[in-house]
Amino acid sequence: MNADSRPTFALFELVARFGGELIGEGTVRIGQVGTLETAGPGEISFLSNLKYQRQLGSTRASAVIVGEDARGATQLPRIVCRNPYAYFAKVSQLLNPRPPRPAGIHPEAAVDPSARLGAGVYVGACAVVEAGATIGDRVEIHPGAYIGPETVIGAGSIVYAGARIYYGCRIGERAIVHSGAVIGADGFGMAMEDGRWIKIPQIGRVVVGNDVEIGANTTIDRGALEDTVIEDDVKLDNQIQIGHNCRIGAHTAIAGCVGIAGSTRIGRYCRIGGSAMIGGHIDIADHVEISGGTAVAKSILGPGTYTSLFPVSTHEEWLRNASLLRHLREMRDRIKALEEQLKSLGGQRS
Amino acid sequence: MNADSRPTFALFELVARFGGELIGEGTVRIGQVGTLETAGPGEISFLSNLKYQRQLGSTRASAVIVGEDARGATQLPRIVCRNPYAYFAKVSQLLNPRPPRPAGIHPEAAVDPSARLGAGVYVGACAVVEAGATIGDRVEIHPGAYIGPETVIGAGSIVYAGARIYYGCRIGERAIVHSGAVIGADGFGMAMEDGRWIKIPQIGRVVVGNDVEIGANTTIDRGALEDTVIEDDVKLDNQIQIGHNCRIGAHTAIAGCVGIAGSTRIGRYCRIGGSAMIGGHIDIADHVEISGGTAVAKSILGPGTYTSLFPVSTHEEWLRNASLLRHLREMRDRIKALEEQLKSLGGQRS
Amino acid sequence: MNADSRPTFALFELVARFGGELIGEGTVRIGQVGTLETAGPGEISFLSNLKYQRQLGSTRASAVIVGEDARGATQLPRIVCRNPYAYFAKVSQLLNPRPPRPAGIHPEAAVDPSARLGAGVYVGACAVVEAGATIGDRVEIHPGAYIGPETVIGAGSIVYAGARIYYGCRIGERAIVHSGAVIGADGFGMAMEDGRWIKIPQIGRVVVGNDVEIGANTTIDRGALEDTVIEDDVKLDNQIQIGHNCRIGAHTAIAGCVGIAGSTRIGRYCRIGGSAMIGGHIDIADHVEISGGTAVAKSILGPGTYTSLFPVSTHEEWLRNASLLRHLREMRDRIKALEEQLKSLGGQRS
Repeated sequence: MNADSRPTFALFELVARFGGELIGEGTVRIGQVGTLETAGPGEISFLSNLKYQRQLGSTRASAVIVGEDARGATQLPRIVCRNPYAYFAKVSQLLNPRPPRPAGIHPEAAVDPSARLGAGVYVGACAVVEAGATIGDRVEIHPGAYIGPETVIGAGSIVYAGARIYYGCRIGERAIVHSGAVIGADGFGMAMEDGRWIKIPQIGRVVVGNDVEIGANTTIDRGALEDTVIEDDVKLDNQIQIGHNCRIGAHTAIAGCVGIAGSTRIGRYCRIGGSAMIGGHIDIADHVEISGGTAVAKSILGPGTYTSLFPVSTHEEWLRNASLLRHLREMRDRIKALEEQLKSLGGQRS
Repeated sequence: MNADSRPTFALFELVARFGGELIGEGTVRIGQVGTLETAGPGEISFLSNLKYQRQLGSTRASAVIVGEDARGATQLPRIVCRNPYAYFAKVSQLLNPRPPRPAGIHPEAAVDPSARLGAGVYVGACAVVEAGATIGDRVEIHPGAYIGPETVIGAGSIVYAGARIYYGCRIGERAIVHSGAVIGADGFGMAMEDGRWIKIPQIGRVVVGNDVEIGANTTIDRGALEDTVIEDDVKLDNQIQIGHNCRIGAHTAIAGCVGIAGSTRIGRYCRIGGSAMIGGHIDIADHVEISGGTAVAKSILGPGTYTSLFPVSTHEEWLRNASLLRHLREMRDRIKALEEQLKSLGGQRS
Repeated sequence: MNADSRPTFALFELVARFGGELIGEGTVRIGQVGTLETAGPGEISFLSNLKYQRQLGSTRASAVIVGEDARGATQLPRIVCRNPYAYFAKVSQLLNPRPPRPAGIHPEAAVDPSARLGAGVYVGACAVVEAGATIGDRVEIHPGAYIGPETVIGAGSIVYAGARIYYGCRIGERAIVHSGAVIGADGFGMAMEDGRWIKIPQIGRVVVGNDVEIGANTTIDRGALEDTVIEDDVKLDNQIQIGHNCRIGAHTAIAGCVGIAGSTRIGRYCRIGGSAMIGGHIDIADHVEISGGTAVAKSILGPGTYTSLFPVSTHEEWLRNASLLRHLREMRDRIKALEEQLKSLGGQRS
């Protein structure tokens, strides 16, 4: 993280690019971003939540990005803007450009002659592109990645090492698919007859929109009859499982380890917390937030935050309470009986 | 999904193959399957649950597969049978045959000379078959898959791109192993001594029966001392973790993201819902159904459906209630005290 | 598991190596380890918990390893020691040495000329080592594994088939990284602006200490600004997700399917049960044990065992009770009202 080896930008240059109001010395040069706690000279930090305001006093950063509410909270050179976290993201992108892989096909890659490759495509060692695949311009297919027959990858997408996309799927433009992700494996469909399972062919595809990021070891199954659809700008963390026929609405973000069973539809702009468990054949409205660890077995029809968590306690305390969970109805009935007795007692008294 | 490019079958041909009673015009030709909602002309759909009967009225399908209970529920040409969903599965298999990979070893595959390969085996680019492995007839080993030393793969099995099977394991016939699955990694075994962990060699194998399907990124650990065993016709969805020494009984189906800790035995014909968490060293009887998201920490000795889910609610409602979970015993004690007071009150009154 | 093909050791030789007190015939030769139930002649078993003492009576093992408390519980030749399970681990390591891969680079591997390789390194078929990587002495990089640019792997480490380590990460010495693990993918960081997500570059690394084991398909994300750190002797089972900026303290063991959200710090010598869900930005003290399936949303400041599990029951029983979870506060209020009525009733009476 040696800022010397990277280009630097003066604060006034940042404001010229990204807007915001500059307060203080505009010629301070910035080479890297950091947290309030760890940023040092030549670095810029940000404050997006007033509850961390105390850290502003002790930061060694050369400048900070703050919101209107904190414009006077520091004497440091600062950029005041509407959305400090987003501003910080843009500054970090500027200071940490991702070096693209140089175009070309590694001699140890295996690209089928019938695959169509756009301009500037990179295919790494031991990557495999099967027959009839279509790879857009500037796509990077890193070592050991796999693109199945007839699959289409949109321009500017990155498929990291060892990600695997089965046949006939469509990935949009500017997608990022991390290592170990598997897109388009068979959905989990079978019928029981005479004591044995009969496999149901999964004839749908996976169709992924533009600007989607898919985390490491996340799996998205192909549809049983129709397609599984991931709309534009969806962000999926690691180790998520999305069952066949699901549809995930645009701009929805899903944290790690979430499981979503088949045929479920999740709205736009939802946020699903880590390890949440979402049942099959349900609908979740737009702008729904699901807390981490929450199990959702029924549709959620309106926006809001939803939770189902048994609160953690010491094991001894848990032992004392947990067994009573099986007796809630009985407790309720005893309360009811008490109320009636007391009422009749009152009645007799009056 | 253009039916024109596939062979079609007349309804009477389907009945000749698969049985059932034909009602209506038997010469109607069928080229694909679909849902009641989406099937169009030339396609056949099915009704396996009377609660979807309303969709029968509006379907554009050319024919439907129904059970005895719905034989009169439509005027469409129809096949009446005992198990419409299984019938539908068989028709879909007929209409959507999976094209086998042509036999042969890709020049960029790495097959050890000491490996034994049956007839008609396919080994894709960048797949690796190690020393002493035995690959049965017509097995497909897709690009980037890995078969460890001395491992045996039964005839007709498919190992998809990038699935990995460690040394010394046995996979039965007609298995399907999806991308990213890892079979035979070390079980999680170690002993603590003097503040450090000592690894316990995992000297068992993974032994998988016939007709097993293993989902994408599912992991099955090798046994510590004995084998981990997956019996015939077990169906495993994606991202399942099966710990060392487990035994999964025949015909059991396990949905995505289920974790099963070590040395647990699950019976035959069980169904485990998605994201269920099953502890170690427990027994689950035959014909047990576990609801999705359910945590099982003790053995389940008889058939039935079992559940442990905190119901979801709005976050505010949850906040109101969740803290009281830690006070259930206190609430119970207060109810008891009220009952006693009321009793003594009653006693004094009489 | 035929002991004939392996070297054998007399009991007195084991005691000479590992200590402990020998009781009975010391020339009995041991070729393998086994459980009390399954060990046969020529094999040694162990008893680490008196609750399995009954099995001592029927075991066919030639010898057993026991603690002080069980020194007189059998007539078999036996080794008495302080920690029978750890002793057993060491005997098993002696009897089951892991054959190292012969040094050398497979002709179908792809090692960048700028990578630095130590002495005795093995690189398997279709494995990829990128530019500037540093591979320590005796490291094994199995087929299809991937080492990113500038990444460092310490001496004696094993990277199994198809594990993937992104650029710029550091793995310590004697690490074991199982198949499908992904280390160093981007953390899940983005900012919302004008209805779209902006990606925040993840400029930290993953830094893994010595003697760490990382299970199959486990994922550890690189830090957003600082590093994600896994300290020495941490043991991670399969399918664990560790978010960006986390720190896992030395000697902590985490079972399968655990998800840990970003910026969380877990102490030393913790044990986290399978499928536990640990929220982001929290601290967990040293010597904390978390039960399997437990969701942790707040910091845990002291040692002890912690649990949050809804107990499993039949689905019917669950239905009777679960709906009342949403009415706990109401139940509590009704109890309070009863108490007050009864008090005022008592008051009126006296």
